[in-house]
Amino acid sequence: MNAGESLRKLRERKPLIHQITNYVVMNETANATLALGALPVMAHAREEVEEMVGFAGALVLNIGTLSPAWVDAMLAAGRTANERGVPVVLDPVGVGATRYRTETAKRILDEVDVAVLRGNAGEVATLVGVAAEMRGVESMGAGGDAADLARAAGRALGVVASVTGPVDHVSDGERVVAIANGDPMLASITGTGCMSSAITGCFLAVADSSFDGAVEALAAFGVAGEDAAVDAKGPGSFHVNLYDALAALGPATLDGRARVS
Amino acid sequence: MNAGESLRKLRERKPLIHQITNYVVMNETANATLALGALPVMAHAREEVEEMVGFAGALVLNIGTLSPAWVDAMLAAGRTANERGVPVVLDPVGVGATRYRTETAKRILDEVDVAVLRGNAGEVATLVGVAAEMRGVESMGAGGDAADLARAAGRALGVVASVTGPVDHVSDGERVVAIANGDPMLASITGTGCMSSAITGCFLAVADSSFDGAVEALAAFGVAGEDAAVDAKGPGSFHVNLYDALAALGPATLDGRARVS
Amino acid sequence: MNAGESLRKLRERKPLIHQITNYVVMNETANATLALGALPVMAHAREEVEEMVGFAGALVLNIGTLSPAWVDAMLAAGRTANERGVPVVLDPVGVGATRYRTETAKRILDEVDVAVLRGNAGEVATLVGVAAEMRGVESMGAGGDAADLARAAGRALGVVASVTGPVDHVSDGERVVAIANGDPMLASITGTGCMSSAITGCFLAVADSSFDGAVEALAAFGVAGEDAAVDAKGPGSFHVNLYDALAALGPATLDGRARVS
Repeated sequence: MNAGESLRKLRERKPLIHQITNYVVMNETANATLALGALPVMAHAREEVEEMVGFAGALVLNIGTLSPAWVDAMLAAGRTANERGVPVVLDPVGVGATRYRTETAKRILDEVDVAVLRGNAGEVATLVGVAAEMRGVESMGAGGDAADLARAAGRALGVVASVTGPVDHVSDGERVVAIANGDPMLASITGTGCMSSAITGCFLAVADSSFDGAVEALAAFGVAGEDAAVDAKGPGSFHVNLYDALAALGPATLDGRARVS
Repeated sequence: MNAGESLRKLRERKPLIHQITNYVVMNETANATLALGALPVMAHAREEVEEMVGFAGALVLNIGTLSPAWVDAMLAAGRTANERGVPVVLDPVGVGATRYRTETAKRILDEVDVAVLRGNAGEVATLVGVAAEMRGVESMGAGGDAADLARAAGRALGVVASVTGPVDHVSDGERVVAIANGDPMLASITGTGCMSSAITGCFLAVADSSFDGAVEALAAFGVAGEDAAVDAKGPGSFHVNLYDALAALGPATLDGRARVS
Repeated sequence: MNAGESLRKLRERKPLIHQITNYVVMNETANATLALGALPVMAHAREEVEEMVGFAGALVLNIGTLSPAWVDAMLAAGRTANERGVPVVLDPVGVGATRYRTETAKRILDEVDVAVLRGNAGEVATLVGVAAEMRGVESMGAGGDAADLARAAGRALGVVASVTGPVDHVSDGERVVAIANGDPMLASITGTGCMSSAITGCFLAVADSSFDGAVEALAAFGVAGEDAAVDAKGPGSFHVNLYDALAALGPATLDGRARVS
């Protein structure tokens, strides 16, 4: 784990992060990607996703506003990413809320080799069959301990499970790391979960491993969230500050303030 | 009418507000919903809308960027909402500008029991057959008096008509209430009409009646607009302030400043 | 060239700018259009684009997030715009990155009489067959001189070529004008290229010629970018300031600060 070094590489190499994501947050995840220092590209047409992902440093699939044509494109892009060795992040937004979301997320996990699954506790619990309460796309909490959930998900799904919440937990099924950065205001605007998935894609493009990249991304996004909260008067100004904070985040600051255990 | 009490309930219960809305404002209406204190969910696939609306406190249909698959989903979601007793808000964005919008809005009004129709004077006038001038999705004014228009719409369409403008008017076809809150800067950014519809959905989920909810929502959004204008240097900073103001709005402030007559 | 006079006319006449654009920037280009003083309308359904464009002062086609139904709508709207004398702006976002984008941009240029082609150097170079390096939708530079590229594109494609970069160049194939306004922070957020295309549409609706409109638009957007950078702490606050600056831009200021040669 060397978050500062990864951030330095990311800004030097400016990897292209191909995102097939939902309509609500496209602008937000593109701007978060740019603010951090990578290059976002949004492309969802079956006609071009396989070609586009060939240039990418990572692929981020997000099921927040699904429809059949987009699911086809996600599967096609995911398979090509696997062939080319491009790491894939899956954000199973709202899984558990409807059968369509649950089936789609499971199908992607079946047909695509997902490097990192980034979700909230309710979403991840749904995918490992643990009881969870979803209200739309919001997790109302899941039974049990978050560290155990991350480990169980990593083991059962063969992914790095990145479970975000008041404290985040990342596990490959054996190791579990807790990241205690962030601010409650991150829950006051839409799309911060999606941003953390996009940023996970950014770090995967440069990190030593999927596990390291997932941890480093949550530390970076958490520290930026803390900085954004300082002068925020509410969710609007917090949202603005968040981009400023991502752009201002320095490697040394990140290493010094990351609360990873 | 008890706007403060409804706001208190809304923050306590955090109802899910299912929105099938346009691409331009999805992020904005989701963030306005969150800032006020409810939970937004955007889902538009025919495969999941009926299941999703079953969890919702209100359904908001907005025709701002139409296409056939979305119209089908709106009708399916609307019918299910009616079966489950979930109140439906219709925002007929740009109706009158093209036949496709006019026909779609009329079809939704025919096939779905709409609780509140929230539009500008030109849009509402179009739907009741009164002469109106539309320029794209902007109303250039409608003939006659806004209070009369609201009453005529309420009567002709069997809805609570919520007609926004410099002064807003809400009518169920008999009673007419005027809401004199708001600020001219609300017209300087896109999506404020759509936000007022989303917020109408939020209040419908907790108010004593559709009429009360429609009035309370416009008072709340208007007071937030006034607060947002105070330090705004232009449309960009007004937009940011608007989310801060929605989040900061307290029940007592809302009751004290609502200008409803 | 009389940028101030065009800005004055634009605010007086409030032309409708019909935009068929990408999901990432729709809100941003709509708000930039409004902030400047024109009226945006986003409509992409095959069922309504021909009718909608009939009311428009300009049509902006942007291929940033393509799919077949959208391409059909762009072609239909473009042809109708040509019949009605409505000027068309094409923004070939990411052309060169995938065959689908390249073929679509060429097809639009073949089937629609495009008044202004607004792109970065890599995009424009791709369309005239000059070597260029694209990374997703970002230009990594093109061989040769930007003024020569603009002239070559104007000549080869029969358009006014508007090539943006550190210094912008506009050419009709004979004349070449350089616009030296702007700020490096414009590259720190997504959608500023798309905004410059939308603003080109705004100016085309009122300018004496497509050439003049293209130049005036880049001067106006560049001056607003300079103002937005003054107090910006990063990309988030720059983004907010940009809308404030567009709205605050006065005709005399624009004429005084435009660096056109």
